[in-house]
Amino acid sequence: MQDNHGAILLISGPSGCGKSTLLKEVYKDISEYYFSISTTTRAPREGEKNGVDYFFVSKEDFEKDIKDKNFLEYANVHGNYYGTSLKPVKEALKDGKLVIFDIDVQGHDLVKKTDLCSFLTSIFITTPTLKELESRLNNRATDSKDIIAKRVKNAKIEINSIDKYDYFLINDNLDDASKKLVSIANAARIKASLFNKKQIISEWMN
Amino acid sequence: MQDNHGAILLISGPSGCGKSTLLKEVYKDISEYYFSISTTTRAPREGEKNGVDYFFVSKEDFEKDIKDKNFLEYANVHGNYYGTSLKPVKEALKDGKLVIFDIDVQGHDLVKKTDLCSFLTSIFITTPTLKELESRLNNRATDSKDIIAKRVKNAKIEINSIDKYDYFLINDNLDDASKKLVSIANAARIKASLFNKKQIISEWMN
Repeated sequence: MQDNHGAILLISGPSGCGKSTLLKEVYKDISEYYFSISTTTRAPREGEKNGVDYFFVSKEDFEKDIKDKNFLEYANVHGNYYGTSLKPVKEALKDGKLVIFDIDVQGHDLVKKTDLCSFLTSIFITTPTLKELESRLNNRATDSKDIIAKRVKNAKIEINSIDKYDYFLINDNLDDASKKLVSIANAARIKASLFNKKQIISEWMN
Repeated sequence: MQDNHGAILLISGPSGCGKSTLLKEVYKDISEYYFSISTTTRAPREGEKNGVDYFFVSKEDFEKDIKDKNFLEYANVHGNYYGTSLKPVKEALKDGKLVIFDIDVQGHDLVKKTDLCSFLTSIFITTPTLKELESRLNNRATDSKDIIAKRVKNAKIEINSIDKYDYFLINDNLDDASKKLVSIANAARIKASLFNKKQIISEWMN
């Protein structure tokens, strides 16, 4: 049987578009997944747990990992480092898991430049309209007005990058959008199985 | 709601790999499809119907259509023309259908060079092994030994082109392989919906 190969599903999209809710549906269908947790040097906020929300490390450790090329991608945001450690990603791929990144457009650009792009399927998810995004952010009332304005501004910029992605998905209906995301996730795993052409041909011939 | 856009699913793979059986499972899931029928100048064989097995046309009509650029791709095989007429494909795409091509590696190369490649997802399907292919061809006993030998020879050549395809699928288990094909077909439709970036952004902003 053709194995489900390790693959990367990279998801971008504005905060408030429903990524986390959609991903829960993917987890129901694909049990062998690894949701990539970012590493950061910023202090944990109340309730945040190490290894769940982030891997919290010191600036020294982070900079040592940069030197040792242990990051798939990283960025410095307002003096704090944020990055994706390579080790857990590579281990999950080796175990045949679907690695899921929730990452912004800049992070996507960086990942596409790495060796791991052979395993990558990317998808940009958003709300049906900009107005709907603003209304969702206002209704969930978890962010201040300033933060909401910043998220909306970012969303307006990021929408221009949708053609860099393999897929574009509008989350207008949870059932419909989650079915689509599951199809894309399954297709991503099949796509990644083609990466070793020589081995496939040699196994097929014998 | 994000519409399912017209898309092309191009399938290649050796005769005997089970393409038609797998496609029947796709038709159960996706009702809006158009299976592309080839046009040929060869005479119909017993039982073959015009518009079902092929569009049977005269050499003169075929050559007029070549001149008028009415073919997506065509080839001359042992003095007979075979080709894919553009008109029904374009109509089906306009109607938002999933257009399905069962076509060989050379045909795939030609389609990839056309304007329609923006809508194209391609997949190479084969048996688990070469031996299994030979055994399936011998067991179904519809072809002469010469034809089987020719099919096996072609299969050995075509396997080297799998990396030109978006997906590679081994048909070892009907249930598993058809689920995978349905996922790929659904993903193909979502992928094709991204082709008009400007329109998407303008609709999203307003």
